[in-house]
Amino acid sequence: MRVLILGGDGYLGWPTAMNLTASGHEVAVADNYLRRRLAQEEDVEPLFSPPNLFRRVELWREISGHSIKPYIGDLCDWSVMETIFRTFRPEAVVHYAEQPSAPYSMLNRRAASLTLSNNLGVTSNLIFAVREFAPEAHIVKLGSMGEYGTPNIDIEEGWIDIRRNGREDRFLYPRQAGSLYHTTKIMDTDLLWFYVRMWDLRVTDLMQGPVYGIVTRETEENEDLLPFYFYDEIFGTVLNRFVVQAVAGHPLTVYGRGEQTRGYLNIVDTLDCVRLSLENPADRGQLRVFNQFTETFSVNELASRVVRAGKALGLNVGVTPVSNPRKEKEEHYYNPKHSHLLELGLKPHLLTDEVVTGMMQRVLRHRHAIRHKAIIRGVKWA
Amino acid sequence: MRVLILGGDGYLGWPTAMNLTASGHEVAVADNYLRRRLAQEEDVEPLFSPPNLFRRVELWREISGHSIKPYIGDLCDWSVMETIFRTFRPEAVVHYAEQPSAPYSMLNRRAASLTLSNNLGVTSNLIFAVREFAPEAHIVKLGSMGEYGTPNIDIEEGWIDIRRNGREDRFLYPRQAGSLYHTTKIMDTDLLWFYVRMWDLRVTDLMQGPVYGIVTRETEENEDLLPFYFYDEIFGTVLNRFVVQAVAGHPLTVYGRGEQTRGYLNIVDTLDCVRLSLENPADRGQLRVFNQFTETFSVNELASRVVRAGKALGLNVGVTPVSNPRKEKEEHYYNPKHSHLLELGLKPHLLTDEVVTGMMQRVLRHRHAIRHKAIIRGVKWA
Repeated sequence: MRVLILGGDGYLGWPTAMNLTASGHEVAVADNYLRRRLAQEEDVEPLFSPPNLFRRVELWREISGHSIKPYIGDLCDWSVMETIFRTFRPEAVVHYAEQPSAPYSMLNRRAASLTLSNNLGVTSNLIFAVREFAPEAHIVKLGSMGEYGTPNIDIEEGWIDIRRNGREDRFLYPRQAGSLYHTTKIMDTDLLWFYVRMWDLRVTDLMQGPVYGIVTRETEENEDLLPFYFYDEIFGTVLNRFVVQAVAGHPLTVYGRGEQTRGYLNIVDTLDCVRLSLENPADRGQLRVFNQFTETFSVNELASRVVRAGKALGLNVGVTPVSNPRKEKEEHYYNPKHSHLLELGLKPHLLTDEVVTGMMQRVLRHRHAIRHKAIIRGVKWA
Repeated sequence: MRVLILGGDGYLGWPTAMNLTASGHEVAVADNYLRRRLAQEEDVEPLFSPPNLFRRVELWREISGHSIKPYIGDLCDWSVMETIFRTFRPEAVVHYAEQPSAPYSMLNRRAASLTLSNNLGVTSNLIFAVREFAPEAHIVKLGSMGEYGTPNIDIEEGWIDIRRNGREDRFLYPRQAGSLYHTTKIMDTDLLWFYVRMWDLRVTDLMQGPVYGIVTRETEENEDLLPFYFYDEIFGTVLNRFVVQAVAGHPLTVYGRGEQTRGYLNIVDTLDCVRLSLENPADRGQLRVFNQFTETFSVNELASRVVRAGKALGLNVGVTPVSNPRKEKEEHYYNPKHSHLLELGLKPHLLTDEVVTGMMQRVLRHRHAIRHKAIIRGVKWA
């Protein structure tokens, strides 16, 4: 299958590209290095700097024999999207090409405006490109469990049947997110669902929880194939940040009461979820929604896992609750369903102590590169 | 109260401005003449051409003694929004400044992209301007009944309580619209609801049905004070279009089976709804949603009203169903609640035969200006 990956330079985009070629698919990646630029602007660059896409494509070909076609350009620019579709003619598209940070989206007006226009601009151009050049192509869109927020009822898998006064209808499960970034994901869903109904697009919306980890099957050979490892408050995900904090001797930054609970998954499982979705595509006119996580944890639970794993490595890890910079419920009901990807064959890689220890050992190799001032930046929600 | 009207050149914006000054409020209007420009580009200009905002402001002062402050500029441009807020310092803002046509939003990629970026760009800038310069200001946002679509259960007034497995929560009523334009209104709601929760904004979202009519209390004196009367397929609302078709001897263009049912209101009631909302503002941290219409009709019912009123004026009005260019249910359940504005004191002006006849008499004066080729443009949804 010819698969185009939008956002192919990213934390998930690049490992997905390698993984899909290793599974026999033909892959192109597109990116404008937006995340690299924003991280540089905010002085929160990753733990190590992956080579640019051209160089990683070369390296991956040397190591694996598989080719990946790189396109560099801004996908909000229609002429860029059009050229890629005309030349690569994708049969499926994985859409990661968004400003992906909640704190970044809350930083200031400029960051909010960039998040809104970039994320919706790419999604809109993608929809029109599929309509015009590849109407049969399957769009696999990375959504977020954060779109649902923390409602007081069970979180269904994308859809909800509502019965009322003897009548019934099925709706998108109500969404109310905790950041502007997550709100742009809700808007993506609004947009895709509209055009699925109008133009019979095929769409799978992967409502993904926070991802942790760094090493995937394809990156074991060479560190230059690893994706970004962000450990700062803006672009890092929570477990990745805690692991770096533990290694750096910085107390773990638990926000508020720490009972915020979310669904998490290992980066290895992200790749499997995306591949399973691609290999079992949505029908024409179908918006399929999968809740993409394998386990739920509170922030306190994550912190205690990191403390325990640190102890095994002889690290003395402390925990210092910090005043919550976000506006969110610190204690709440949380019961999200997640059966669809398991039914497609996902075999979860759960968060064992070995996994945390493995992440710590990897980070220990780069201990000298950790910059303490990146750990807390103080981006406040209100 | 100092009220800023965004989109003050429009069909509803300008009559709202006059009406609010007549009620003793201090008013500024902002517009970039986008609608005029789009209508010119698509060759669907209104039945008569209202003078520009400066001239209408002068005329209204001569007639009424009331001042209105005009600002001309693109509200997607932060510097324009900022200047208006710094100089006028509004206590309330009425937000009409959107590309308001469903068919226009379905015309082509460029029109879709303009609708998406204009509508969300203005809403986003408005939110940031209120946050920065007028945190107490009440935002009255024109939404649309079209955001709800035509669900198979009763349409509540903005919110829905969902009970499930012994637990309960309150959500925005699920929205699924029938055009990209209406989908951008859903996204506006997503955005406003997010920032209401984060920054305690005061917002009233008016879910308005299609408006009909042209004359308001303030425009009886002088035709140059009338707003746009669009009768084309792109910018005209259905009853206004049918009235022109009747006068022009064109068979009424009922789409498909004509059982599409919506909630309608007279332009005079729009002004009252907006004024009642302003004078009874939302609280800090409250998103209030009012369903803004007074009666529901099917398209067939509207057509038969126009046929009957035409007969009274000696016009022989025909009805020719046309193949539906839209993708929508032509027969459906429709039971939307609408009590909040009545509770605030709205006294509806219902659609009597006299109202239709009055509209026809007004249009008859401009009969010579009707251009038949504007009546059907053939904008298809899919």
